[in-house]
Amino acid sequence: MQSRMMTEETEKKMPGPMFLGIDGGGSKCKARLADGTGKFFGEGVAGPANVFQDQRQARRSIVESAQRALASAHLPDTDIKNLVVGAGLAGANIPRVARETEEWDHPFAKFYVGTDIHIACLAAHGAADGAVIVAGTGSVGYSTINEISYGGHGFPFGDKGSGAWLGLEAVKAVLQADDGLAPETALSRALESQLAASGLGIVDAMVGASSRDYGALAPLVLECAQRGDPVALEIVREGAAYLSDMAEKLLGTSEGRLCLLGGLGERLQAWMRPEIVARVVPALGQPDEGAVRFAIQCYDG
Amino acid sequence: MQSRMMTEETEKKMPGPMFLGIDGGGSKCKARLADGTGKFFGEGVAGPANVFQDQRQARRSIVESAQRALASAHLPDTDIKNLVVGAGLAGANIPRVARETEEWDHPFAKFYVGTDIHIACLAAHGAADGAVIVAGTGSVGYSTINEISYGGHGFPFGDKGSGAWLGLEAVKAVLQADDGLAPETALSRALESQLAASGLGIVDAMVGASSRDYGALAPLVLECAQRGDPVALEIVREGAAYLSDMAEKLLGTSEGRLCLLGGLGERLQAWMRPEIVARVVPALGQPDEGAVRFAIQCYDG
Repeated sequence: MQSRMMTEETEKKMPGPMFLGIDGGGSKCKARLADGTGKFFGEGVAGPANVFQDQRQARRSIVESAQRALASAHLPDTDIKNLVVGAGLAGANIPRVARETEEWDHPFAKFYVGTDIHIACLAAHGAADGAVIVAGTGSVGYSTINEISYGGHGFPFGDKGSGAWLGLEAVKAVLQADDGLAPETALSRALESQLAASGLGIVDAMVGASSRDYGALAPLVLECAQRGDPVALEIVREGAAYLSDMAEKLLGTSEGRLCLLGGLGERLQAWMRPEIVARVVPALGQPDEGAVRFAIQCYDG
Repeated sequence: MQSRMMTEETEKKMPGPMFLGIDGGGSKCKARLADGTGKFFGEGVAGPANVFQDQRQARRSIVESAQRALASAHLPDTDIKNLVVGAGLAGANIPRVARETEEWDHPFAKFYVGTDIHIACLAAHGAADGAVIVAGTGSVGYSTINEISYGGHGFPFGDKGSGAWLGLEAVKAVLQADDGLAPETALSRALESQLAASGLGIVDAMVGASSRDYGALAPLVLECAQRGDPVALEIVREGAAYLSDMAEKLLGTSEGRLCLLGGLGERLQAWMRPEIVARVVPALGQPDEGAVRFAIQCYDG
């Protein structure tokens, strides 16, 4: 069933179902409404949609973003039941979480569950196969070449090379330097200045800190590394080497494209291996566009 | 003012005040009642007393353990106001926390605030100067030679060589091995078996885990290292090298005694430097005895 406005305006262009791409992350959920050719009809944004952190909130955000996308296209709320939804969701890389999300008694016609990194990869490379590494607060790699993923394990045990990892390693190094058990460099002064604390005051400032709190320290680690600070350089090089290893695994022997996404993706290239950096290309599209593509692929397939 | 029983039994032996030593940690608070010569009169145990984690609960536990110690000596509750208390408290190494604890409107005659590691060191070496390293869930070093401390920074940024650190490093290594980005060894099987999980299921099992949860993985890391597992060995050696460095700093050029305390103190010696291990001696007493000594020292000083 099509709504009145859709019928008037787009009946001939869109005889098939309406597709909704969901890009669900830890801070917000973005929905993109499109026809079967990917043509844009509307969009909506709602709250967090990380299904690992909070399944109920994620479901609420998905529905709200869908309702807002329908509203932006002047379509009635009731059309939600006609939507074929492809959702790329943070946290859906955990098998148990993906199963729970798939078991949702959702209000849509169809609801296909994928990961945030899968839709980012579909968006980045369009119709072509390729790989992406997202380095922001966390780090994760994924390839549509063989549908394999690396990292994305989260804080504090994973996400090497990410902003949270850079910040955590810096705090560790500065605390050991304060004890005289590791070299003390300008990184110590930079961290103390940003935290307005020193010595055991750093412990007080960082206790219970989230991955985002640690990620907020990443820019100063990168700045120190750029100025040649040996401790910051060692941290950044170790993180970048891990991402280079990940890129190598992702590309394998293929000639596929590689995109480096996320807030640190561009900056970290300076320390990644040249043969990897040589293969980096810009992303063709945004994750919500990839989510629409994912919805169409699942529906057709 | 002395109670009836104390007056009858001990008036001549104990003309001075009553001393109470408090050993306050993250799981329990132990109080030890003694006279000015350190002679034991009673003891009491109450709940957690980590002033960094929960100042209010710590204060409640300190008072309860004091009341129980008085009761065990058949002394009335009202005698609490006559006690000269020396408290060695986990979390009091953080300057802000120590100040807050000292500002407590406590019910005692005197209340002296020290750290858990300071009283452990006083207990371990009796009247002599010396150093201690405590390696349990966390790790910290302290010396009465120069009243200096190392480590004790907490999870996840400090406490290298501790049980929590060993567990966290093992989880990191196993997750990277699962991605094919680090060597896979028997440590992977051991960790998967203990967590009843593998691959991304490990993330699911460990998300939000506490330092104690990580510490619970330390025995399997040590067992794997003992069997020659290269990944476990590298982790254990790195942790033990840090503790050796710490011991070297603590002892400096002095001929002081060194005690290795905590659940892992003994086991980690196998990987510490021989010249350090050669200086290790057994502890003479328990921390609550050190707390009594601390109370007497502060009162006399």
